[in-house]
Amino acid sequence: MTEFFNVLPPDEARALLLRHVRSLADPEVIATESALGRVTATALLAPQSLPTFRRSTMDGYAVRAADTHGAGESLPAFLQVVGEVGMGRAAGMALRPGEAALVHTGGMIPDTADAVVQVEHTQRVGGPAGGFPHEIEVLRAVAVGQNVIQVGEDVAPGAIILPAGHVLRPQDLGGLLALGLTEAPVARRPRVAILATGDEVVPPSAAPGPGQIRDINSYTVAGQVIQAGGIPQVRGIVPDDFAALRAAAVAALAESDMLVMSAGSSVSVRDMTVRVIGELGAPGVLLHGVATRPGKPTIVGAVDGRPVLGLPGNPVSAMIQFDMFGVPAIYHLQGAAAMPRHGRVWARLTQNVPSESGREDYVPARLEETDAGLLAVPVFGKSNLIYTLVQADGLIKVPLNRGGLLAGDLVEVRLF
Amino acid sequence: MTEFFNVLPPDEARALLLRHVRSLADPEVIATESALGRVTATALLAPQSLPTFRRSTMDGYAVRAADTHGAGESLPAFLQVVGEVGMGRAAGMALRPGEAALVHTGGMIPDTADAVVQVEHTQRVGGPAGGFPHEIEVLRAVAVGQNVIQVGEDVAPGAIILPAGHVLRPQDLGGLLALGLTEAPVARRPRVAILATGDEVVPPSAAPGPGQIRDINSYTVAGQVIQAGGIPQVRGIVPDDFAALRAAAVAALAESDMLVMSAGSSVSVRDMTVRVIGELGAPGVLLHGVATRPGKPTIVGAVDGRPVLGLPGNPVSAMIQFDMFGVPAIYHLQGAAAMPRHGRVWARLTQNVPSESGREDYVPARLEETDAGLLAVPVFGKSNLIYTLVQADGLIKVPLNRGGLLAGDLVEVRLF
Repeated sequence: MTEFFNVLPPDEARALLLRHVRSLADPEVIATESALGRVTATALLAPQSLPTFRRSTMDGYAVRAADTHGAGESLPAFLQVVGEVGMGRAAGMALRPGEAALVHTGGMIPDTADAVVQVEHTQRVGGPAGGFPHEIEVLRAVAVGQNVIQVGEDVAPGAIILPAGHVLRPQDLGGLLALGLTEAPVARRPRVAILATGDEVVPPSAAPGPGQIRDINSYTVAGQVIQAGGIPQVRGIVPDDFAALRAAAVAALAESDMLVMSAGSSVSVRDMTVRVIGELGAPGVLLHGVATRPGKPTIVGAVDGRPVLGLPGNPVSAMIQFDMFGVPAIYHLQGAAAMPRHGRVWARLTQNVPSESGREDYVPARLEETDAGLLAVPVFGKSNLIYTLVQADGLIKVPLNRGGLLAGDLVEVRLF
Repeated sequence: MTEFFNVLPPDEARALLLRHVRSLADPEVIATESALGRVTATALLAPQSLPTFRRSTMDGYAVRAADTHGAGESLPAFLQVVGEVGMGRAAGMALRPGEAALVHTGGMIPDTADAVVQVEHTQRVGGPAGGFPHEIEVLRAVAVGQNVIQVGEDVAPGAIILPAGHVLRPQDLGGLLALGLTEAPVARRPRVAILATGDEVVPPSAAPGPGQIRDINSYTVAGQVIQAGGIPQVRGIVPDDFAALRAAAVAALAESDMLVMSAGSSVSVRDMTVRVIGELGAPGVLLHGVATRPGKPTIVGAVDGRPVLGLPGNPVSAMIQFDMFGVPAIYHLQGAAAMPRHGRVWARLTQNVPSESGREDYVPARLEETDAGLLAVPVFGKSNLIYTLVQADGLIKVPLNRGGLLAGDLVEVRLF
């Protein structure tokens, strides 16, 4: 597979991967109230208007706007209030010229009214007591439609309310439920199998012997899978043995939609991972090596429309590379048109960050609020050191063909 | 309660609320691998070094650095390779001067070695075949410690690895597991009771009659509660009746850590909510009214250390106000030292946004990527219209004492 040992820039590498990933074909219909973070499987249309009746946006009086023409503090219009529209009821009254109806915010406007005068712009004639009818002074004119939400002003019937491939947020659930759409078709959550390899790796619950370390990549990747909407399947640790690794990979892929191998860190184990991916099916390994630091020796592949990744063993590289390839792949499997935008902040760099041209660097950084503004403090450390990420709030990206960044530069920090 | 009808700026109002909220006193110990998004209940200390042995960061040869002094392409150092350190094994060999050991990335360094020469900077004398011992040429000198991770370089024993009140991210889980901390003490997830009120409100599954609308605030708020780490308890719709609302609020608060009432939108119902909160316990209503748009008539209160909110009935106001008060309160209940930073992007405003001095405005905006950069398109609409938020990617904040924003201004958009 060494013919694939070409090193692509990250954007091209990701595009290559996604071209070989097929979105899941079997959506499911679930309760809208449980659909937070899920991805719409089809475009959704409004089955009705919203609202279905004309509503007041104010506490006040439904009126015929023409009756308030020219009204002002010095020359109020006098109207006869003939009744009150109860909340949650049909307006059920017809206003004749010179008449008004008491309405509350969200209440229905009588057919014969076309505007609402807010209560603060009126004065009751003869004091607060008494029932209907009674008289009010209108101290300000209103235009037709003022303080009224029209039928269909929020949504017109038949309108596309959400496109396919939309990641559902709280307000989207509200928008669907407002229209009575209590169920929604969404992509199922992709199952992501995670295998750790390496003769030196033991489970977190074990006491490592000399030369041994605990598996952490399975769990950091599982966390990233959950954040992207997938279901992680942590399948344990496989020894550095070709037949064992191949058997574990075949079994994992048979029960999942995506496979991630946290490869051992030595060259021989990486080569073994490349060979295993090559034997899983077509197209197999798409590329081996990405022009980034950390994370160059990442293996990117696909098997029958399913993403297969071989991550570097170093925990920092593994997380950054999974963010670069794994997260977009999970959204792609769900048919998402776009991923949720990453939060970014601008901050002043406190130290020089060297880089090499032709490589995209990601440097963990801690943010510090100061009187002089937000500072980005690079957290330097070998990519074997998970605590460089624990201490960081985000990543500074050093673009592909930029020799580095200077202390005092304003840099964009991508938040975790 | 009308003596509380003072209108505070949002930051002061939030500080006032949080001063009256008590963090939950009963943390729980859970599996670290399930702790994503949870908040640490105590500071966590490293029970051991990480790593516990000196590891190589390269595939290459463990050496005594002094043996490579002055080595270069034209004058290589010759070393005798006496064996290989297997992955996951003790190094188990002693290097004498002039000797080296083959090591892999992550492998243990023999006690007698103090640096690693990467394999690319060596050449095997006499070709690739053969076992040990064999001779190599070292083509580049290494310094003491080069390509070696020292014991405790990632974490020293006893170090504070995470403070109390830290919201756990994937890398934090990895950091804990690397040290064998398979369980972690975290705040329990606050239970947030949600009551909808309003005679006009029916459940989403019902067909609204004339003048009726479906409850959506219960579900948008539930989504926001989940995002902040809480457990939403949607308790249904209460009619506009003081005794019924008070009974429902008392029952809800008895089984939860926080109470949210999505108040009916009319003044009389808001006043009823204020009275109910006033009767739940001390201190009750803290303030009624916040200097923001949308959302001015928000009711902020606390009862015996638990937050109690009365949100405006309008769905846009309700979401924005819950984000402003409810989300910080949920993190505060969990003892979080800080909330996860909101993502923000800078974009060019496409239209004027009017505002009033003395008020903080939040305007929903859609983002558009163009050749000229990122544009922020305000989504104008009455705050009754949930689809203004569905169409938006985030909120533009118009600061408290700024008369408005102009088309062409560079504005910060807070992402949803």
